[in-house]
Amino acid sequence: MSSIDLNADLGEGFGAWRLGDDDALLDIVTSANVACGFHAGDPSTMHRVCRAAIGRGVAIGAQVGYRDLAGFGRRRIDYEFGELRDDVLYQIGALEAFCRAAGDRVRYVKPHGALYNTAAVDERQADAVVAAVTAYDRALPVLCQPGSVLFQRAAAAGLTAVAEGFADRGYRPDGRLVPRSQPDALVHDPAAVVARATRMAADGEVVAADGSVIACRVRSICVHGDTPGAVELARAVRAGLAERVTVGAFALG
Amino acid sequence: MSSIDLNADLGEGFGAWRLGDDDALLDIVTSANVACGFHAGDPSTMHRVCRAAIGRGVAIGAQVGYRDLAGFGRRRIDYEFGELRDDVLYQIGALEAFCRAAGDRVRYVKPHGALYNTAAVDERQADAVVAAVTAYDRALPVLCQPGSVLFQRAAAAGLTAVAEGFADRGYRPDGRLVPRSQPDALVHDPAAVVARATRMAADGEVVAADGSVIACRVRSICVHGDTPGAVELARAVRAGLAERVTVGAFALG
Amino acid sequence: MSSIDLNADLGEGFGAWRLGDDDALLDIVTSANVACGFHAGDPSTMHRVCRAAIGRGVAIGAQVGYRDLAGFGRRRIDYEFGELRDDVLYQIGALEAFCRAAGDRVRYVKPHGALYNTAAVDERQADAVVAAVTAYDRALPVLCQPGSVLFQRAAAAGLTAVAEGFADRGYRPDGRLVPRSQPDALVHDPAAVVARATRMAADGEVVAADGSVIACRVRSICVHGDTPGAVELARAVRAGLAERVTVGAFALG
Amino acid sequence: MSSIDLNADLGEGFGAWRLGDDDALLDIVTSANVACGFHAGDPSTMHRVCRAAIGRGVAIGAQVGYRDLAGFGRRRIDYEFGELRDDVLYQIGALEAFCRAAGDRVRYVKPHGALYNTAAVDERQADAVVAAVTAYDRALPVLCQPGSVLFQRAAAAGLTAVAEGFADRGYRPDGRLVPRSQPDALVHDPAAVVARATRMAADGEVVAADGSVIACRVRSICVHGDTPGAVELARAVRAGLAERVTVGAFALG
Repeated sequence: MSSIDLNADLGEGFGAWRLGDDDALLDIVTSANVACGFHAGDPSTMHRVCRAAIGRGVAIGAQVGYRDLAGFGRRRIDYEFGELRDDVLYQIGALEAFCRAAGDRVRYVKPHGALYNTAAVDERQADAVVAAVTAYDRALPVLCQPGSVLFQRAAAAGLTAVAEGFADRGYRPDGRLVPRSQPDALVHDPAAVVARATRMAADGEVVAADGSVIACRVRSICVHGDTPGAVELARAVRAGLAERVTVGAFALG
Repeated sequence: MSSIDLNADLGEGFGAWRLGDDDALLDIVTSANVACGFHAGDPSTMHRVCRAAIGRGVAIGAQVGYRDLAGFGRRRIDYEFGELRDDVLYQIGALEAFCRAAGDRVRYVKPHGALYNTAAVDERQADAVVAAVTAYDRALPVLCQPGSVLFQRAAAAGLTAVAEGFADRGYRPDGRLVPRSQPDALVHDPAAVVARATRMAADGEVVAADGSVIACRVRSICVHGDTPGAVELARAVRAGLAERVTVGAFALG
Repeated sequence: MSSIDLNADLGEGFGAWRLGDDDALLDIVTSANVACGFHAGDPSTMHRVCRAAIGRGVAIGAQVGYRDLAGFGRRRIDYEFGELRDDVLYQIGALEAFCRAAGDRVRYVKPHGALYNTAAVDERQADAVVAAVTAYDRALPVLCQPGSVLFQRAAAAGLTAVAEGFADRGYRPDGRLVPRSQPDALVHDPAAVVARATRMAADGEVVAADGSVIACRVRSICVHGDTPGAVELARAVRAGLAERVTVGAFALG
Repeated sequence: MSSIDLNADLGEGFGAWRLGDDDALLDIVTSANVACGFHAGDPSTMHRVCRAAIGRGVAIGAQVGYRDLAGFGRRRIDYEFGELRDDVLYQIGALEAFCRAAGDRVRYVKPHGALYNTAAVDERQADAVVAAVTAYDRALPVLCQPGSVLFQRAAAAGLTAVAEGFADRGYRPDGRLVPRSQPDALVHDPAAVVARATRMAADGEVVAADGSVIACRVRSICVHGDTPGAVELARAVRAGLAERVTVGAFALG
């Protein structure tokens, strides 16, 4: 029986502001992408989430993002290579302090928001992320989309690129996601989301927007926690997965 | 022959802004208090300074400060204990990433500006700094003023408190600094500064504002680099020290 | 029949983060203290809230705060006089742009959080707020606590100091609030809060913590919107007030 | 005799950091593009520069930029239309407060850095700037490059678009600037810069990179103050201009 990881963005509040239900998600996921302070995540939130994650055996990943609190890291920024590499390094190190204080360490890196999307198609930004991870710890996996520029560059640099899938997003026949601006970008039916997650995890395939069945071999599935019903859906995805595969963190053990 | 360390604040620019002459100072000091991004110090400046320091055999300390870029960390902020502990932890970790990328590690912690002054007299803030260092690495020395609350609390917690002196500041007979608001707060004559530094380092004493000679046993002397003539003065202090004691980093070897 | 104003803090989200229910409160209050970007309130939130407030005939006040997003303006900062004056001026001007775009203007100024509390007892900070308002527009009222240092300094400088009361806070016999660290700091019973608000507004008095009845002549009553049940309570306060006095903005007409 | 304006970026420090020599430039230019806090310019710097400018009869423009202190507004950010409009509105209003405190008002708007460059070619960002100025004050001129998208959209919206030229930049035969990545992007010879400025101002033409003479009708010429020798060059440009045309602010009188 193969094994699948379930990851979600966590610790995305800032100061007095909260976003999503960190505690509920930590009971569901096996990997927590913890915001590192640049697009979200103040130090005390980071500390609290790291302690809670480690206490539950959830693997912690550095959810690195653009320096853009006002935009929540969702606006593309044209960084120079060195500036972006250093912003990523800084965030990984900052998160490491809380992992260390809680008795563990950063287990992987996953870019957030516009950095995730940009590094998927832009060599300079992908290379900056790769350079940061390489400088920090070559053994640290990078969680990203299979086929993306980041996935390719990370692998080419000798890093471990870990493939993730999105059960609630439409796929094009070529394996890329349907852009959010188009219909079919999102899968709204909870039962369909659960079924897609299970099929990805157990069979390595997904039904694309044109109805064709395409390969979708992923080691982790991303769930969300900041929309109404998201926690329940994440729980259902986990339950569905557990019927056919082992659910466990890719970055532990 | 005893040994003395020479420390200075470095990497205090931010983005397009520069402050002080980092390269000149790195040729003089044995320990670099590198700003960590909260009161000064963007990631690329941190990276560059860490590389330059390590290349010269200069020990790197985390110059942790309040989250206050606009105030340069010079305004007292009434932090809660946990918030301050976490802000300090975050900054140590962030700096560690650049030390690690450059082949070394953070060697000590020194609070900056208003945090330095507040932790010298305020138990809650001193304890927050101590808690951060304890959580991160109990072997990490804390550089601060002998007799300060921070010095006492760090020592009481089992940390290594390292005493530093200020050759260009007036001392009261009780060993505390003359407040900046008073005359005699600053020693302006360069020759006097050099002589005071040497006497502190070699004889463990200093002439107080009332003319009495008091004990001043310090392991490090702080020099500044952001005022006109400061680099030349720092060079003269180092030359003066080298005539009577060994000059070397307290946190290396 | 005398007239009472009902004010609340609004627009206290930032970017992706929300706090409180702005729309619900705008249907209840007569004055909106709109956050101006330093402790909360991004420009688009400010724009939206100003438009909504002006559309409902609600008066807009500049809820000026410390530059401290991470601390939500709740941590005292030891500002220099000129720095604080300029931070306050900046915020008033920024909010004015959105009022102007929506067809109105800033109608009053109310300090937020730790600035409110500090300016109530500290002459330097009170004077900095007064200097900002004086420089901007001497006709702009300052909403604050009667008896506070800010109230006195504003009045002494020729500004219009407007007294506000807190229906959900305990009062000491001398007219000051019971500190939050003590029992009796908060009034929890909704019916009691409504009764206290009405008595303040209609009779100019309140029952202090020791049971004595003291004078409490206020032109505005502050309600909150960011806790469970707060909106319902604010609605009940307004309904209670309307039975005995006219409810209307102090700064309009 | 026609009249030409001389503008420069001013107030681009932040907190403890300085950039350029504001006082020297204020004795040379007729219009000051004052940074408004998002890419540079803390409130106290804004206040000081506004007072100094108004005291010298220099017109103040809002130098609006992206929210990016770490990148000094030089990195393109993919803003949504409404977010950018509101960031621009916020900055204009904030600067207005200091102009008002110093007895004048904001006289024009000029985008900074990457916003300047992006709004020159991108309709959405150009329209966001136009929308902000329109909402704030339709009479406020927008200073930008002739032929740019911003110039066209501002004019089409009924705003006053004011053309500016760059005496130290190479021009392509089509009137656009030679990109900085190419040779001929910059004119280094001070005498050539002065001659080009004078020819632009007096004759409305400039020699393009291919040697052809092209039309370059501008109402203002931009000089810089943050590089070595820049202040002296600005002074020479002004002296050269004064020999053939009147030098005066376009936005005053």
